[in-house]
Amino acid sequence: MKIVVIGAPGTIGRAVVAALAPRHEIIEVAKSRGALTVDTSDFASVRDLFSKIGTFDAVVTAAGNAHFGPFATMTPDEFRIGLNDKLMGQINVVLAARDLISSGGSFTLTSGSLSDEPVRGGADASTVNAALDGFVRAAAIEMPRGLRINSVSPTVLAESWSVYGPFFAGCEPVPAKRVALAYVRSIEGAATGQTYRIW
Amino acid sequence: MKIVVIGAPGTIGRAVVAALAPRHEIIEVAKSRGALTVDTSDFASVRDLFSKIGTFDAVVTAAGNAHFGPFATMTPDEFRIGLNDKLMGQINVVLAARDLISSGGSFTLTSGSLSDEPVRGGADASTVNAALDGFVRAAAIEMPRGLRINSVSPTVLAESWSVYGPFFAGCEPVPAKRVALAYVRSIEGAATGQTYRIW
Repeated sequence: MKIVVIGAPGTIGRAVVAALAPRHEIIEVAKSRGALTVDTSDFASVRDLFSKIGTFDAVVTAAGNAHFGPFATMTPDEFRIGLNDKLMGQINVVLAARDLISSGGSFTLTSGSLSDEPVRGGADASTVNAALDGFVRAAAIEMPRGLRINSVSPTVLAESWSVYGPFFAGCEPVPAKRVALAYVRSIEGAATGQTYRIW
Repeated sequence: MKIVVIGAPGTIGRAVVAALAPRHEIIEVAKSRGALTVDTSDFASVRDLFSKIGTFDAVVTAAGNAHFGPFATMTPDEFRIGLNDKLMGQINVVLAARDLISSGGSFTLTSGSLSDEPVRGGADASTVNAALDGFVRAAAIEMPRGLRINSVSPTVLAESWSVYGPFFAGCEPVPAKRVALAYVRSIEGAATGQTYRIW
């Protein structure tokens, strides 16, 4: 398969590329580095990306930020960071690629455990992650041409523990390599509308 | 208690007001009619509303639209209708009222069954409803001063069956009066971070 990995230089992206590369052609996409770049929060940028790629069979999105900070002082603008970037960014990819992806192809999005296991400072991420899992459940039932869509919901990554560990007291971090297996399951399996919880 | 009901003229709003009015002082808020109006998608409008109300003990939001239509042709702008209106509208209310509501007070938001039971045409609503339930779970754990927050997640209303029935094949509609009981449970009970599923 020809698989587009958006967010390829990230911790998850690198592990996904490593897991898929032995068996597939990987098109690596970054935010600002390399041959193919995209600002997923900008629909025109996403359309432009896919116009350059040609045909493809699967898309992974492992990109997008949410705001972390105390709920007590969180502003609407801070809250919209996650909605515009991690949430609409990934939805923009699906909407732009929907008519271009090969029949039988798949989308695999990235949500996160905060959807169900909230932590202090994570209200924006909890909202966005829950939204992504809901989007996947709904979009799956309307996908034409045998297209599939799933999300991978990791807990905090072992590789990110030094940054996010303080938010995730008592959580067991998972290595990106283990998280990457769920993307393989989504892409090479046959399920749709599923959220693979890695926690 | 003094309870602010945003979306009071709506089908759910009227039932909530009817259920609460015998025991509480109700401040009815509408989008465009009556003494108190608000555009919940506009944070300045929400702030302005609460500056007029003075002290209050609970807020119900039963307002906000999502886009209904085929996923195959749904545009990012259509998708943002739900994010800006039903999702950020209710979050704007919480963020604006957070510091003004009486200690021990409560927020009760409105999501909906499409979060978990998607139907054709409902991708925007599924995303938004799942997001709202995720928001409530997360915001609850950071609420100061004994504040509580829950969501009510109704399936299609009996009163809306003529409009939404075709989307909800095989679903059992519930009367708004039954849905309203969940708001009473949220406001007069002690739970927080909960989603009351009425389906």
